[in-house]
Amino acid sequence: MKYRKLIAPYLISNGRKFRLAQIRPDDGARQELKKRIDELMAGSVARLSELQEKLYAQNTWGMLIIFQAMDAAGKDSTIKHVLSGVNPQGCEVFSFKQPSAEELNHDFLWRAAQRLPERGRIGIFNRSYYEETLVVRVHRELLDKQKLPDGLTGPGIWQERFEDIRSFERYLTRNGISLLKIFLHVSKDEQQRRFLKRLDKPEKNWKFSTADLEERKFWKDYMDAYEEMIRHTATPHAPWLVVPADHKWFAQLVVAAAIIEKLDSLKLSFPRMTAEQKDQLKKARTRLA
Amino acid sequence: MKYRKLIAPYLISNGRKFRLAQIRPDDGARQELKKRIDELMAGSVARLSELQEKLYAQNTWGMLIIFQAMDAAGKDSTIKHVLSGVNPQGCEVFSFKQPSAEELNHDFLWRAAQRLPERGRIGIFNRSYYEETLVVRVHRELLDKQKLPDGLTGPGIWQERFEDIRSFERYLTRNGISLLKIFLHVSKDEQQRRFLKRLDKPEKNWKFSTADLEERKFWKDYMDAYEEMIRHTATPHAPWLVVPADHKWFAQLVVAAAIIEKLDSLKLSFPRMTAEQKDQLKKARTRLA
Repeated sequence: MKYRKLIAPYLISNGRKFRLAQIRPDDGARQELKKRIDELMAGSVARLSELQEKLYAQNTWGMLIIFQAMDAAGKDSTIKHVLSGVNPQGCEVFSFKQPSAEELNHDFLWRAAQRLPERGRIGIFNRSYYEETLVVRVHRELLDKQKLPDGLTGPGIWQERFEDIRSFERYLTRNGISLLKIFLHVSKDEQQRRFLKRLDKPEKNWKFSTADLEERKFWKDYMDAYEEMIRHTATPHAPWLVVPADHKWFAQLVVAAAIIEKLDSLKLSFPRMTAEQKDQLKKARTRLA
Repeated sequence: MKYRKLIAPYLISNGRKFRLAQIRPDDGARQELKKRIDELMAGSVARLSELQEKLYAQNTWGMLIIFQAMDAAGKDSTIKHVLSGVNPQGCEVFSFKQPSAEELNHDFLWRAAQRLPERGRIGIFNRSYYEETLVVRVHRELLDKQKLPDGLTGPGIWQERFEDIRSFERYLTRNGISLLKIFLHVSKDEQQRRFLKRLDKPEKNWKFSTADLEERKFWKDYMDAYEEMIRHTATPHAPWLVVPADHKWFAQLVVAAAIIEKLDSLKLSFPRMTAEQKDQLKKARTRLA
């Protein structure tokens, strides 16, 4: 399986000319892939687990994976299926809900900055500070809740947030936190089908909220906001992966492949022992035996 | 007392051409000021307390004051004397010591970002993330402890840190955290006198550590690092105040004046009641009486 080739059409390393229309939500799901999906996923999960072990042992790089998407695009199930093989000691998922009163009292990166992964760990943000350029942009009244001083909430605020996020992510990369940002790109029709399933299957009812239905009215605004976000924040060191997500199995394969590629690019290795350390280990062996 | 005039020679809003030699550690301490110091300080502390109350009531701006200096320059005593009049509910001091193992496992701004002040509050950093360009630069072996990946610790790292800090502080300002950065500029001779006092007075002994003495050997390296830091991070929105600190009373007056000026520039005011709110207050009054 050539991971690089699989993800190439979806990896945006320079957002300047990006258009969301370039990538169809139902792209890529070919039958010959689907037939082999169990085997492919098993191989990917095993490879991921191997790389994560090296990341943990080497303990210099950390990795931050951000998931953004509309409701029912498959964030939770992708995290579950792609990362279930990974040792939870080296992997931490954090889900960002509506900000608390304390969080609103701080700068907008505050709550995310605290949850950044340590060296050697994979940190997963299920939603993230990007909501500050998505839901807060679509529902501008949310900006008022942030109690920013007058004069700091003019029309330039979104460009400022993009610039601040770009700087923040450049800083993270310089400090050994490698970034991958994933947008699960689902169609409005497929979301409808998934919502209907949530309503029809009693064991899926808990996942449905009428508020989600309301948000469908703002679909176009959200798509515009996602496109703008990717155009302004996809960079070589912190690219966006725009994943066709109408077929869950395909989305999961692409996500697994992209994480593997990113970890591979770090050239991870188990720490090498110096001659002196090897000598110490030898002595320790003698004393033990 | 014209605060603006007092601080003007020491406020660096554009560091590009700054030289530390411009400002003498024993500058400014004129006799006619010294005679009136008690009265001047009392007035300043009262004004500061007033402004802090408005900051708290308005609850949109936060303020971050950073103190950096060599040992015995007077950081602790300045914080004590200048800010003692301020309601501690709206003011929080955080002292940064040597980073813990957990802190070293994260990006260098991580521990500071968590301690940023809420809206309506004054946050004081006694030392700060600037140590990353000072003690870590003078003692480069400290950088190795940060376990950064190979290739990220080249000679460009200090310029990168300056750039990252500039971006971070621009971000903070945009998000309603006003910044003032204070360098208490003491001379090597005056430090010697103060260390001797710490050794001679039993009740001051606890403040002395032989490690402090060792650091005097690196005096020139530190001064170079401070100058570089100010040159690269003094900006209009986050200026450095380089305070002549050989005379403690003068340093304290300048610091008080600068904080007052900065708070004044925010044009703080108590929240105004709308006609509707006034009406509600009136009704509440009737019900109570």
